[in-house]
Amino acid sequence: MLGLEFQGESTRLLRRVAARETADDSSLIFVEDEGRKVFLSEAPQAACVVASRASVPEGINAIFSEHPKLDFSRAAAYLHPPPKSRGTRHPSAYVDPEAEVADDAELGPYTIVEAGARIGGGCILQAGVIVGRGCNLGKECILHPGVVLYPGASLGDRVILHAGVVIGCDGFGYVFDGRRHLKFPQVGGVALEDDVEIGANTTIDRGSLGTTHIGSGTKVDNLVQIAHNVDIGKHVVIAAQTGISGSTVIEDFAVIGGQVGFGDHARVEQGVIIGSKSGVLPGKIVRSGDVYWGVPVRPLREYKRLNAIFSRLPEIKAGVDALKKEVAELRQKLQK
Amino acid sequence: MLGLEFQGESTRLLRRVAARETADDSSLIFVEDEGRKVFLSEAPQAACVVASRASVPEGINAIFSEHPKLDFSRAAAYLHPPPKSRGTRHPSAYVDPEAEVADDAELGPYTIVEAGARIGGGCILQAGVIVGRGCNLGKECILHPGVVLYPGASLGDRVILHAGVVIGCDGFGYVFDGRRHLKFPQVGGVALEDDVEIGANTTIDRGSLGTTHIGSGTKVDNLVQIAHNVDIGKHVVIAAQTGISGSTVIEDFAVIGGQVGFGDHARVEQGVIIGSKSGVLPGKIVRSGDVYWGVPVRPLREYKRLNAIFSRLPEIKAGVDALKKEVAELRQKLQK
Amino acid sequence: MLGLEFQGESTRLLRRVAARETADDSSLIFVEDEGRKVFLSEAPQAACVVASRASVPEGINAIFSEHPKLDFSRAAAYLHPPPKSRGTRHPSAYVDPEAEVADDAELGPYTIVEAGARIGGGCILQAGVIVGRGCNLGKECILHPGVVLYPGASLGDRVILHAGVVIGCDGFGYVFDGRRHLKFPQVGGVALEDDVEIGANTTIDRGSLGTTHIGSGTKVDNLVQIAHNVDIGKHVVIAAQTGISGSTVIEDFAVIGGQVGFGDHARVEQGVIIGSKSGVLPGKIVRSGDVYWGVPVRPLREYKRLNAIFSRLPEIKAGVDALKKEVAELRQKLQK
Repeated sequence: MLGLEFQGESTRLLRRVAARETADDSSLIFVEDEGRKVFLSEAPQAACVVASRASVPEGINAIFSEHPKLDFSRAAAYLHPPPKSRGTRHPSAYVDPEAEVADDAELGPYTIVEAGARIGGGCILQAGVIVGRGCNLGKECILHPGVVLYPGASLGDRVILHAGVVIGCDGFGYVFDGRRHLKFPQVGGVALEDDVEIGANTTIDRGSLGTTHIGSGTKVDNLVQIAHNVDIGKHVVIAAQTGISGSTVIEDFAVIGGQVGFGDHARVEQGVIIGSKSGVLPGKIVRSGDVYWGVPVRPLREYKRLNAIFSRLPEIKAGVDALKKEVAELRQKLQK
Repeated sequence: MLGLEFQGESTRLLRRVAARETADDSSLIFVEDEGRKVFLSEAPQAACVVASRASVPEGINAIFSEHPKLDFSRAAAYLHPPPKSRGTRHPSAYVDPEAEVADDAELGPYTIVEAGARIGGGCILQAGVIVGRGCNLGKECILHPGVVLYPGASLGDRVILHAGVVIGCDGFGYVFDGRRHLKFPQVGGVALEDDVEIGANTTIDRGSLGTTHIGSGTKVDNLVQIAHNVDIGKHVVIAAQTGISGSTVIEDFAVIGGQVGFGDHARVEQGVIIGSKSGVLPGKIVRSGDVYWGVPVRPLREYKRLNAIFSRLPEIKAGVDALKKEVAELRQKLQK
Repeated sequence: MLGLEFQGESTRLLRRVAARETADDSSLIFVEDEGRKVFLSEAPQAACVVASRASVPEGINAIFSEHPKLDFSRAAAYLHPPPKSRGTRHPSAYVDPEAEVADDAELGPYTIVEAGARIGGGCILQAGVIVGRGCNLGKECILHPGVVLYPGASLGDRVILHAGVVIGCDGFGYVFDGRRHLKFPQVGGVALEDDVEIGANTTIDRGSLGTTHIGSGTKVDNLVQIAHNVDIGKHVVIAAQTGISGSTVIEDFAVIGGQVGFGDHARVEQGVIIGSKSGVLPGKIVRSGDVYWGVPVRPLREYKRLNAIFSRLPEIKAGVDALKKEVAELRQKLQK
C-alpha cells in the first residue's frame, strides 16, 4: 500500500501506530535514521518498524523508508483512518425544512442546520454543531462538537474543524464619529477550501465587504485569530495563538510559528518561514527565500546577530565608559 | 436619512453595501478622498458612491461626504440593520419557571435560561446560548451561538456577544499554603454596559470580591482575556488576543492593539493608544496624551528611536572595537 | 474550623466573604498586615475581619491570622463551598446505553455522554457538556457549560473545567511530502490528575503517540494552549494565553505568567518562575532556583540589567560618536 520494500513477516497484522515506549505486538513504530541500529532492543515488542534500510538489523519486521516519519504518517492514515459518516441523524438534530443535507451525512445530537444551508455527502456534524443560514459544506467535512458557522460560510471538501471553532463572526471594524464607535459593515463572506484543518477554539472572521479566504491544504492550530478579509494561500501552516489582522495576505507554503502577530495589510510571500512570537508591522512585505524572527521581524541571521550583541550590552557599555576615561587621560597628557 | 447632499437619481434603490470590486447596480460603495477622480471607471456598475464632492465626477450617483468611511458606515446601518427579534421560542428552548423572559425576546434551539434570570425585550438568544442563574439582560441584546453567561452576569441594552464568548467565569486567584494552591474566592460580579460588543471566544472573568466592569460603547475583539476586577471605561477599543490582568483599569476612549499584555493593577489613562504586542508592567500608569509601544511600553517616539539604534548595534559595537584599537595606538605613540 | 484564635462575638453569623468596600453585617473581610490599624473606620459594617493580631483594634470581631489572605481563602471555602451534585438528570441529557454514569452525578440540559464513558460519583456536567467515547471522569468533577472532551480523555477527582474548555483535540503535527502536509497521527491520550482546574476556552491537545499529562493540583487560566505530549507536573500555575508546544515538560510547583510561549521539547525545572510574555526556545532547559523573564528567557537580574542599558542606548551611541570625534582630534594633534 505504501509502495515500499519490507523484510520479515508479510502477513503480520498491524492494528495501530505507537511510540517506541508503548508499542505492542500489533503496533507499527518508526525510527528516524540516527545512523545506528538501536531499536531492536528498545522496542522488542513492536510488530513492525518503519526505518531506513541501513538502521534495521536483520530478523525484525521492517518497512524500509528513506523518510520514516513521512511513511509512518502515510501508514497511520490506513491504520487510523478519519471517521466515516454513519449516515445517521440523531433524533435531536434540528434541520430547517429549507436546508439541504446529503442522505449519507451524519448529524449528531443537538446539531442545528439552518435554512438554506447545504451539507455535502459524507459530512459528519458532531454534537452541538451549528451551521448558520445559507452555509455551504462540501463532501466529507468533519465538524467537531460545538463548532459554529455563521450564516453564509463556505467549506470545501474534507475540511476538519475542531471543537469550538467559530467561522464567519463579525470582523473588528469601527469608525469613530467623535463620540462613539460605529460599526463598519461586516457583511462579506468566508471561504475555506479543500483539506483545510482548523484547531480548537480558533476564530475566523467574515470579510467586511470582501471575503476572508483560506486556501486548500492549509493547516491552522488552536486559538488562532484570523481577521476580516485575510487571504491565506494553499498549504500554509500556522501554529497556535497567532493573530492575523485585517486584509493581510499569506502566500502558499508559508510556515508561521505560534503567538506571531500580523498587522493589517501585510504580505508574506510564498514559502516564508516566520518564527514564534514574531511581529509583522502593518503593510510590511516579508520577502520569499528567508527565515524571519523577532519584533519587528528580521531575517533570522540578522536577528541572531542583534540578539547576540544585545546580550553583550553590559560589556559594550563598560568598554565605552573605559574609553571615555582613557581618552580624557590622553587628552590631558597631550595638553601638557 | 444621513443629512447629506447628493447628486444623480434620488430614487435609486440601494440594497447593500459593497466593495468597489464586487459592487452591482443596487450597491452603495465609498471612496476615501484620494485627491483624484478615479472610481467612475473602476466601479461603473455601483448604484451610488459615498465620497467627497471634489472626488466625484459628474454623471454618477453620489452622496457627498467629508468623512466617506463614516457616512458609509452610517448608511450601512440602514441597509444592513442588526437582526430584530422575531419573538419566537424554539420548542427546544429551556426556560426555568423562575426565569423572566420578555414576550418579544427570541430564543433559538437548545437555549437555556436558568432560574432567576431576566431577559429584556427584543433580545435574541441564538442556538445553544446558556444564561446562568440570576443573570440580567437589558433590551435588544444579541447573543450568538454557544455564548455562556455564568450566574449573575449583567448586560445592558444592545450588548452583542459573539459565538463562544464566556462571561463571568472564575478569576484566576490562588493562595499557596506551602503544599498546594487554595482557591481565593471568586464570588464577585460582572457587568457590561449598553452597546458593548465582544468578539468570538473572548473570556471575561467575574470579580473575585468586587465586580469586573466594561463601560458603555466599548468594543472587544476575539480571543481577548479580561481578568477579575478589571475596570474598562466607555468607548474603549481592544483588539484580538490581548490579555488584561486582575484589577487593571483602562479609562474611556483608550485604543488597545492586539496581543497586548497588561500586568495586574495597572492603569491606562483616558485616550491612550497602545500598539500591538506591547507589555504593560503590573502597577504601571500609562499617562494620557501619547501613543505607546513595546515591552515594556514606552512613548512611541522613544520606542522608535531605541529600535532604530538597536538595529545599528553591530555598527556601534564595531565602532567601540575600532576605538579601543585606535586609543591603544595613540597611547603607545604618546608613551614613546 | 480554621484552628485560629478570635476576639469578639463567637456566634456572629457569617454568610459571605466580601471586599472592604462592599461588606455588610454578615460579611467576612480580610486585611493584609499593613502595620497600621485602619479598617475599623474603613469597613465598620463588616461582621468579622481576618487580620494579624497586631493590626486589629479592640472592640471589633476578628479572627487572628499570620496569613490573612490564606486563612480568608480557607474560610471562604466554608462560606462558598463548590456546588454539590443534586444527582438529577435533565430529561434532555443524552447518555449512551453503553456509558456508565454514577447515580449521584448531575447531568444538565443537552449534555451528552457517549458510549464507553464513565462518570464518577458527585460529578456535575452543566448544560451542553459533551463527553466523548471512552472518557473517564473521577469523583466530583465540575464541567461548566459547553466543555468538550474528545474520546478517551481522562480526568481525576475534583477536576474543574470552565466553560468552553476543549480537552483531547488533535495535536498540530504534519509531515510535508513535498506537495502537501500529511497529518502525523494524533492518536495518543490526555490525562488530568486530581484537583486540576482549567480556565475558560483553554485547549489541551491529546498526545500524538504518547500522552499529554497534567499533574494534580495544577491550575491553568483562560485561553491557554497546551500541545500534544506536554507533561506538566503537580501544583503548577499557568496564567492566561500562555502557549506550550509539543513535548515540553514543566516540573512541579513552577509558576508561569501570561502570554508566555514555549518552544517544543523545552524543560522547566521544579519551582521555576517565568514572567509574563517571556519566550522559551525549543529544547531549552530552564534551571531551578531563579526567576526568568524576556524573549528569550534570562534570569530576571540579567534581564533587568540588559533592559536598563537598552533604555540608555541613545546615550551610549552618542558617547561612541563623541569618542570618535575626540580620538580623531587627538590623532591629528599627535601627527603635528
